[in-house]
Amino acid sequence: MANSFIHSDFILTNETARKLYHEHAEGLPIIDYHCHLNPKMVADNHKFKSITEIWLGGDHYKWRAMRSNGVAEEYCTGSATDWEKFEKWAETVPYTFRNPLYHWTHLELKTAFGIDKLLSPKTAREIFDECNDKLQNDPNFTARGLMRRYNVEAVCTTDDPIDSLEYHKQVRESGFETKMLPTWRPDKAMGVEVSSDFRAYVEKLSEVSGVKISNFTDMIDALQKRQDFFESLGCKLSDHGIEEFYAEDYTDAEINAIFNKVYGGKELTKEEVIKFKSCMMVILAEMDYDKGWAQQFHYGAIRNNNTKMFKLVGPDTGFDSIGEFNTAKACSKFLDRLNSDGKLTKTILYNLNPCANEVLATMLGNFQDGVIPGKIQLGSGWWFLDQKDGMQKQMNALSVLGLLSRFVGMLTDSRSFLSYPRHEYFRRTLCNLLGTDIENGEVPYSGYEAERVNQMVADISYYNAKNYFNF
Amino acid sequence: MANSFIHSDFILTNETARKLYHEHAEGLPIIDYHCHLNPKMVADNHKFKSITEIWLGGDHYKWRAMRSNGVAEEYCTGSATDWEKFEKWAETVPYTFRNPLYHWTHLELKTAFGIDKLLSPKTAREIFDECNDKLQNDPNFTARGLMRRYNVEAVCTTDDPIDSLEYHKQVRESGFETKMLPTWRPDKAMGVEVSSDFRAYVEKLSEVSGVKISNFTDMIDALQKRQDFFESLGCKLSDHGIEEFYAEDYTDAEINAIFNKVYGGKELTKEEVIKFKSCMMVILAEMDYDKGWAQQFHYGAIRNNNTKMFKLVGPDTGFDSIGEFNTAKACSKFLDRLNSDGKLTKTILYNLNPCANEVLATMLGNFQDGVIPGKIQLGSGWWFLDQKDGMQKQMNALSVLGLLSRFVGMLTDSRSFLSYPRHEYFRRTLCNLLGTDIENGEVPYSGYEAERVNQMVADISYYNAKNYFNF
Amino acid sequence: MANSFIHSDFILTNETARKLYHEHAEGLPIIDYHCHLNPKMVADNHKFKSITEIWLGGDHYKWRAMRSNGVAEEYCTGSATDWEKFEKWAETVPYTFRNPLYHWTHLELKTAFGIDKLLSPKTAREIFDECNDKLQNDPNFTARGLMRRYNVEAVCTTDDPIDSLEYHKQVRESGFETKMLPTWRPDKAMGVEVSSDFRAYVEKLSEVSGVKISNFTDMIDALQKRQDFFESLGCKLSDHGIEEFYAEDYTDAEINAIFNKVYGGKELTKEEVIKFKSCMMVILAEMDYDKGWAQQFHYGAIRNNNTKMFKLVGPDTGFDSIGEFNTAKACSKFLDRLNSDGKLTKTILYNLNPCANEVLATMLGNFQDGVIPGKIQLGSGWWFLDQKDGMQKQMNALSVLGLLSRFVGMLTDSRSFLSYPRHEYFRRTLCNLLGTDIENGEVPYSGYEAERVNQMVADISYYNAKNYFNF
Repeated sequence: MANSFIHSDFILTNETARKLYHEHAEGLPIIDYHCHLNPKMVADNHKFKSITEIWLGGDHYKWRAMRSNGVAEEYCTGSATDWEKFEKWAETVPYTFRNPLYHWTHLELKTAFGIDKLLSPKTAREIFDECNDKLQNDPNFTARGLMRRYNVEAVCTTDDPIDSLEYHKQVRESGFETKMLPTWRPDKAMGVEVSSDFRAYVEKLSEVSGVKISNFTDMIDALQKRQDFFESLGCKLSDHGIEEFYAEDYTDAEINAIFNKVYGGKELTKEEVIKFKSCMMVILAEMDYDKGWAQQFHYGAIRNNNTKMFKLVGPDTGFDSIGEFNTAKACSKFLDRLNSDGKLTKTILYNLNPCANEVLATMLGNFQDGVIPGKIQLGSGWWFLDQKDGMQKQMNALSVLGLLSRFVGMLTDSRSFLSYPRHEYFRRTLCNLLGTDIENGEVPYSGYEAERVNQMVADISYYNAKNYFNF
Repeated sequence: MANSFIHSDFILTNETARKLYHEHAEGLPIIDYHCHLNPKMVADNHKFKSITEIWLGGDHYKWRAMRSNGVAEEYCTGSATDWEKFEKWAETVPYTFRNPLYHWTHLELKTAFGIDKLLSPKTAREIFDECNDKLQNDPNFTARGLMRRYNVEAVCTTDDPIDSLEYHKQVRESGFETKMLPTWRPDKAMGVEVSSDFRAYVEKLSEVSGVKISNFTDMIDALQKRQDFFESLGCKLSDHGIEEFYAEDYTDAEINAIFNKVYGGKELTKEEVIKFKSCMMVILAEMDYDKGWAQQFHYGAIRNNNTKMFKLVGPDTGFDSIGEFNTAKACSKFLDRLNSDGKLTKTILYNLNPCANEVLATMLGNFQDGVIPGKIQLGSGWWFLDQKDGMQKQMNALSVLGLLSRFVGMLTDSRSFLSYPRHEYFRRTLCNLLGTDIENGEVPYSGYEAERVNQMVADISYYNAKNYFNF
Repeated sequence: MANSFIHSDFILTNETARKLYHEHAEGLPIIDYHCHLNPKMVADNHKFKSITEIWLGGDHYKWRAMRSNGVAEEYCTGSATDWEKFEKWAETVPYTFRNPLYHWTHLELKTAFGIDKLLSPKTAREIFDECNDKLQNDPNFTARGLMRRYNVEAVCTTDDPIDSLEYHKQVRESGFETKMLPTWRPDKAMGVEVSSDFRAYVEKLSEVSGVKISNFTDMIDALQKRQDFFESLGCKLSDHGIEEFYAEDYTDAEINAIFNKVYGGKELTKEEVIKFKSCMMVILAEMDYDKGWAQQFHYGAIRNNNTKMFKLVGPDTGFDSIGEFNTAKACSKFLDRLNSDGKLTKTILYNLNPCANEVLATMLGNFQDGVIPGKIQLGSGWWFLDQKDGMQKQMNALSVLGLLSRFVGMLTDSRSFLSYPRHEYFRRTLCNLLGTDIENGEVPYSGYEAERVNQMVADISYYNAKNYFNF
């Protein structure tokens, strides 16, 4: 066992950590409350034609590593064959030591395919063949098969208000044992930067909602209809991707005028854009409150930095990075507005710049209400921070500035059906942190307190999310 | 001993660390050069009616943890009984693993009350009773008794210029062996955000100083009178709570006009507020220089974020958090102004956002004068950063970017008479850092160098503060 | 051996780290691709009159430490004798525990002079005498002798476009086995803050280039001539010291007008300065691209903070510090501009504020082109960050967010011929990181993967720089 790179005690550097993981975390189901899976693939119980499809089809982390390693675009998003792409990835893997990709790659090979070999040019062909054989011939390796293998109790996809959610319906009706629920992500409803895009979106919104939209109030009505529809399919969660928090002052008259201007085809000033976003943030948050949903905010990315590649391969292809924003005051003002009006629902804040860990970890405490334990949450290490170092820093900040015990824990944020081992990776990291503290005498571990630590591990791994979201 | 959670080698992970702590730090007196104790309680030698009063009466750290854990406000700042509040705190404690509250709680129980038990719902009643028995019946558990128990040589409270300092006089006259000195904190003299508040303050200042104030110069004269009075009672230290550093340019004419405007009842523009603060920062710093005092700047908090709770329970109740400010250039400009005029006194800079550790640790070096060793200081981990991780980061930044040897060390910044074990916590953390470096061969420890390391530990624990402040 | 402070396993805390260092890093030559050596001293094969000259003659790190320790300026940059200055430094050294100066000092004494003693007041005189004896009497201790001793294959100095490079020519013609190449540092060509300084610079540029300059185009022509000249002497690298990234929009007409205004003796507005810098950044970067050079950007310092000392002792004397800038978007826009025009050359980005490690480490990925491995680089820990903690943080960020394997590694950035042990220090730190990961089971180390790890160590220590710069 210890001869394998990924073995039962991977990342667990001491006895207590191992005990915590194996006895209190390992066996628990997965609640993956935020991901980007394609619902159709679940509905269709998609069968993968190759490891290249499932691994390299949409994984911008891997593409970035390949490009950094001097691999041409043809082998990333281009027209090379499955084998050619896989081979280039296999050449890159031994250059990813100390990068999370090295761990994820081998966790996935081991836990999904039972492969203990390390991927490199030497092993590329045999691993390619073995994985493809399973994906093509073993019914346990379909989309649903993989979700069963990883004991996934619930997943929340990420969906636009205009989405028909037809695949969610199909999955629900199929009796599939993993709950697949939609997440309300209305970013485009506040995307007023380009008037023609906004107009086109609002027209689609009008169509799917059946609400004729001629002013701002109509648009909100249409969104409300769609939100009701999302709720009818089990949605309990919203998500918002924002560059920073917007909390400018505005009046109804201003917002109406801005809507009319942009909907009428005129470009807005920067101030108008921000005013509009500030208003939409509040309205959408109030809608979430009224439904009793939890709301998520992912902020701080700067996206599509490479114009040339954006034109060639579009968004979400690995050309985004960590931004620098001083947004603490705006975040506070936004949450305070809602709180003052008694409309602040359960909220999860995700930062992309690790420098904001402490800022957010203290922001939470401003709005905890003494009713819902851990009502305001610091989201788990997001995107670039979704690795051991990033997760440790997030958990350390939350620990010293808040209550780690109340943390709702991990999510994959992934487009891949092979990403569930990230929950295992997270749980190992969590247990290693706690186990190390215990061995250093900084957390007690006997009698009542040992039970509490054990429960804390299980809570963060599973039960806190179960109770917080109540899917 | 090792069966206790808080035992003699708590936090000390290696032999050298243990030796350094027990032989060179543990026995030294405490100089608590910045705190928020209530001077009246020292003057009256206050007797506490319960552990709830001394622990939960004003501790916003604990309130935040309780609220995060779903405890209603009634049990934090509200009208619940002492036992009810304590019980809710005891329920919360086992949810604070990895938070400094868990360590502080048990350090305080152990070092003040000799209680080795861990606080939880199971032990709440017996601990409540045992603590209350001592507080109510043992004369060593009064305000002064506790200061004696912790070998406190000097404390500096935090006082407004208009304060009568009557309790400081009483304590001085009583012959109490701990020196209690005032600290000059003139924040309200630059608080021009709300004209009526400023007017009211200036009127009180006029009254206590006996200076009729009708213009800006009068106000400065009045402040000077009060500063002389503070000096007469042993004050050697100022403190300034600022959001960021203010270093705009201004003219005397502008400042006079701004004073007249705000004193006359008109609200200032944001630019005027900042100009006024920029001027006051300089004038107050020059006054400190003329007295030979040390000046402290605590910057970077965003306060009273929760308007609803602010209206209910007021400031300093646990609704503040870490801000994000780019204030390095303004800090530099402010210090440079004073330095250019030969008016830069000993200065301690405290950041709240840990991202500024390195910024400030290098800022110090710009203004060290080659006369007073460690003249410009990086303040010890402040407020949210006043925990093991925060203290380590502060000391690591100071070590690699300045001279740790010259650090004036720890202060409690506390409102509680039970917070002195934070000095122990700090000393243990310091010794553990140095001991670990020594065991790793990164700091030498034999002969002359061992003596220097030993002295360095004692200096940072006690002697540097003694020499720097010269109380 | 283990009795020495600097011994063969210094910093190497485990067996694998020791193996990696001794077998795969220790023996490799040094490519010091960025430094501030004085070319004349290499041309003249300078003989040092004392350890004070070589150690304290221009080392602002040491001066800062001395000033912080209460040492008067006379002993830093002043007129004290060599012995007096050295004695003051020796007194300061035992106050630098945990500061990199303590390690550097003893690494230099050991590796250059074979001195194992620790510097302190007790050993000052004998160390002073022994070093001076070698420097004055042993031909191996000249400028070139030291470069030979440290196996320096190539050094790149830092040179202004108007520099005659006469000493580079002399060194080249002398057949000295270390390649000394110039680096193109055209900061003054964009230094339009003070019109008279800019005018004077442009006039000198005109003179040395032989191009009559009467408008902006002429200045660019003159710069191009000088760049051709630099190329003729082997230059393959530019360097730019900027406060932040400048990426404002501009038109040719605007730039021409700004040039005429400032060249004509009028001061520019802040907006004009930034527009001009934004334009120069692009033009200079395009020139680098056309040459196939690598370009370096050092950003984020705030300089000359102490006006009083600036007037007394000038720039680069230890009065600079770490700034706070939100420059990620501008950096992205600048690089994107070049990339969109197909003019983005190999680029190394150095941040001074460690908070930007993650920002830059993700910025790289936006512009990796899939052709040159590691085309965009995160520069090694710079200036204040050039120490163990800073280097670890830089390598950790690069590891988890990019490819550490492709890192071009260390440079001294130094003015001293004794700074080459910083390469050793870096290599030890690198091997310790990797060795620790291997021992923790987080990086594999057997068979093919062990070879890859070994090669990775050698690559980062030497081969990556060799291939990337191709000197």
